[in-house]
Amino acid sequence: MPRQSDAKQKMTQAARQLIRERGYNATALSDVLELSEAPRGSVYFHFPGGKRQLATEAAREHAAEQVEMIDRLAAASHSAAELVEAYLDAARDGMLGSDYGRGCGIAPLVTEGAAADSAEVGESSRQAFAAMIDRFAFHFAAFGLDPTEAAALADALVAGMEGAMITARALHSPSPYDALRSVLVESARKVSPRD
Amino acid sequence: MPRQSDAKQKMTQAARQLIRERGYNATALSDVLELSEAPRGSVYFHFPGGKRQLATEAAREHAAEQVEMIDRLAAASHSAAELVEAYLDAARDGMLGSDYGRGCGIAPLVTEGAAADSAEVGESSRQAFAAMIDRFAFHFAAFGLDPTEAAALADALVAGMEGAMITARALHSPSPYDALRSVLVESARKVSPRD
Repeated sequence: MPRQSDAKQKMTQAARQLIRERGYNATALSDVLELSEAPRGSVYFHFPGGKRQLATEAAREHAAEQVEMIDRLAAASHSAAELVEAYLDAARDGMLGSDYGRGCGIAPLVTEGAAADSAEVGESSRQAFAAMIDRFAFHFAAFGLDPTEAAALADALVAGMEGAMITARALHSPSPYDALRSVLVESARKVSPRD
Repeated sequence: MPRQSDAKQKMTQAARQLIRERGYNATALSDVLELSEAPRGSVYFHFPGGKRQLATEAAREHAAEQVEMIDRLAAASHSAAELVEAYLDAARDGMLGSDYGRGCGIAPLVTEGAAADSAEVGESSRQAFAAMIDRFAFHFAAFGLDPTEAAALADALVAGMEGAMITARALHSPSPYDALRSVLVESARKVSPRD
């Protein structure tokens, strides 16, 4: 993928931040411009598809950053269980760091119906989650898990992390991360021959 | 709680349905009136707090229905593992039955920032998830789990189910439910002395 222009990159980041804080519909193009300090005309220059395209690129950016993080954490882990632990700890830290103010950059596109209304948004949401799940499955298999078990653990981990982002935010407590960590680490240990 | 009038009940149900399909911000009061076939003036008669109050009552209704379902499934189960299994299967069936079109009635209030913007909405979201988690923890303890383990399993189950509702909807696949079911049932078996 060619490198995005700085202005385009800033607008994508701003859209992503706002979607994580307040969702898709409450993210106005004018807020994205203000947050990214971009000139008014630049939205339709960089994003001729308007808000849907902006959301699509924000979801892609969100997934790309998550995949990079997964790779980084995997490189520092010695087992599937350690990777599960490191990822859920990082997600928990992120939630606490935002004082329960920031969720997922993809989920709002799904829950607000944008993914169902637009084939483009729907496909980018699907690809974003699939990219995260596939990357976890790849690393779990590299740590010695059977491919079917690796795929199932990856699926459960991404779903669990998504849900923890919602219930932790509502409860103002990190307990969902802790509870899932215990269950998923245990499961990774059970299926992983190297632990 | 006194029984709600039929009109109020219908409007609450309509709001809940629309929030589950398209989220909070995209649910207009006019759509709620149309779906519930209620006369225009009735919104502010029954919901003087407007949309926020409607969303608050919809979240309460959603949690109450979930708690009733949890009680019903617990009565038909013989162990914590069976309850986990029955609940995730019911959630999976609901998702497939809606053709991936319907999510949670509480989550959008959190992800769209309404819970952060309004103390009333925030408190109702917190209470709704807490009610579901507490009821699961109660039943898990009744099935013989240690109270701390019961609470953690309940926390992980509700978070997992919330996340599966998002990733399954995005992926158009029930695989997140299946993956979580396997992990959580295994965990319930491990901690439950009666299994």
